[in-house]
Amino acid sequence: MAQKGDLMTVRTDIRVLDATIRDGGLVNNFRFTDDFINALYRANVKAGVDVMEFGYKASKELFDTDRFGKWKFCDEEDIRSVVGENNSDMKISVMADVGRCDYRTDIIDSGSSVIDMIRVATYIHQIPAAVRMIEDAKEKGYEVTCNIMAVSNAQESDVAQALEMVGQSSADGIYIVDSYGALVPEQIRRITELYLETAEKYDKYIGMHAHNNLQLAFANTIEAASNGASLLDATMMGMGRGCGNCAMELLLSFLRNPRYNIFPVLRFLEEQMLPLKESGVMWGYDIPYLLTGHLNQHPSAAIDYMKAGRTDYSEFYTDLLDR
Amino acid sequence: MAQKGDLMTVRTDIRVLDATIRDGGLVNNFRFTDDFINALYRANVKAGVDVMEFGYKASKELFDTDRFGKWKFCDEEDIRSVVGENNSDMKISVMADVGRCDYRTDIIDSGSSVIDMIRVATYIHQIPAAVRMIEDAKEKGYEVTCNIMAVSNAQESDVAQALEMVGQSSADGIYIVDSYGALVPEQIRRITELYLETAEKYDKYIGMHAHNNLQLAFANTIEAASNGASLLDATMMGMGRGCGNCAMELLLSFLRNPRYNIFPVLRFLEEQMLPLKESGVMWGYDIPYLLTGHLNQHPSAAIDYMKAGRTDYSEFYTDLLDR
Repeated sequence: MAQKGDLMTVRTDIRVLDATIRDGGLVNNFRFTDDFINALYRANVKAGVDVMEFGYKASKELFDTDRFGKWKFCDEEDIRSVVGENNSDMKISVMADVGRCDYRTDIIDSGSSVIDMIRVATYIHQIPAAVRMIEDAKEKGYEVTCNIMAVSNAQESDVAQALEMVGQSSADGIYIVDSYGALVPEQIRRITELYLETAEKYDKYIGMHAHNNLQLAFANTIEAASNGASLLDATMMGMGRGCGNCAMELLLSFLRNPRYNIFPVLRFLEEQMLPLKESGVMWGYDIPYLLTGHLNQHPSAAIDYMKAGRTDYSEFYTDLLDR
Repeated sequence: MAQKGDLMTVRTDIRVLDATIRDGGLVNNFRFTDDFINALYRANVKAGVDVMEFGYKASKELFDTDRFGKWKFCDEEDIRSVVGENNSDMKISVMADVGRCDYRTDIIDSGSSVIDMIRVATYIHQIPAAVRMIEDAKEKGYEVTCNIMAVSNAQESDVAQALEMVGQSSADGIYIVDSYGALVPEQIRRITELYLETAEKYDKYIGMHAHNNLQLAFANTIEAASNGASLLDATMMGMGRGCGNCAMELLLSFLRNPRYNIFPVLRFLEEQMLPLKESGVMWGYDIPYLLTGHLNQHPSAAIDYMKAGRTDYSEFYTDLLDR
């Protein structure tokens, strides 16, 4: 497949989505200060970020609101307290997990909401339920993506069938999600080509969400982009579950579109992200995440290991091999 | 150009070179303990590493031996005190900088040395002097590479001419060296193709030495490999100047050749690299290195900035733009 664009010109189809609150919230149970969220919103608008994700629309039946910060639930009034009517060019998204979201009641009509985009997150075996959520959100007037998680762990034949099912749905975009951070650029290239076949057939776009287990989140994101993906996830200082995601500062410094401005991002990093990190919130590349990524395993074992303050990497590796 | 090899099979032409002492020594003035060096040698042999670089052959006329550890000079007896006769499959290399090495006297005949390989490091404007050093080392019986530094800052026409000059020399291999960590995989692909034209014409191999300013050292290394580079530099925990290099643990976990074993590397990391890092030796990806890499500048300003303990990234960026 031909490379899309080059390193000198601008791909105007490319958009950047900031997922700091949503994926970063998995690290600190969504307990961000209001000051942090307000500063993040302003930084994203100034930086030219295209979409900002505020968090999850999680079910209050399933999850105790006392145990999590408000961005796990993303009530309409909480978002509005930050963005007002969102008089900016930036869109606002939330993520809705299959099986963990009361989408019929909690996602209101888009005409009454400041939210622009619903991202439906699904494992490959949940696609029928995902399609139902996609149609619900689409009927309510939202831009909708389908984020198929843990693609490195799915059979190729299942992925092909899932793509066909999502292709026939009303989703606007389909996401490549490397939840385990197990994929290398050569695999991302092949997967992007596969997704793009469906996307072109059904007039949808492709998104990319990477994890940094192998220090490849940025590399995989730009590899997907150069093969045709156009909605690219990043987070401030790479904040996200375990080893984190593609760093916003890396992605914006790479993209040539003059609409993007790295300066407000740098200021946000020094004023908000460094204090957050110094307060003890932990994320970022480290050896245990490399090992779960290398073995194509969920990062949970590495997260527990890091929280325990262990550094006996060789013992941890033996444990992982013995599972 | 066709991709070399794939993700399932083994490229038997690929070799891995450990540059921990040499590039890492730039961080701590080569002041490693004997225990560290002995453990590194044993770990590399056990891990199946193909070449271990002990340091520089720096001129004792130019550099004060009291100001640096012994691995800036790599005296024959110092290497032998670690490796004896080096009864292993692993080769031993040293680096010789153009203009900073008394190569005529300090590099002895290979028959009398435990060193197997001389890597001649040169800037693009020093190629005639590099060729003289290459011929000297070759006459003395060594495997020789020519490492053309800071390729991201060289004119393409100069690179083409340099390749032709080195191509006609006796060098066995030619190295792509991204000293500023400024290149992305798409550029590495093009550069590798260019180098490979010369390599195939003159029957030489291509090497890759990456820096991690954009979190792309590993990605660029495997991109170069999949396009034909076959001698790949890595360092333990990525230790190297500024943001460091491609991490050995990442590279060995990626390569499929069963000769490589990540386990002794993990043990070395926990037993030697972590204490080294905790002692205050600083390297690894951070925002200031991203900024010099992004701007294709030497990392020295970022190194000074990090040593000063500054975190006002936006101010630093303004400074860099104003140079």
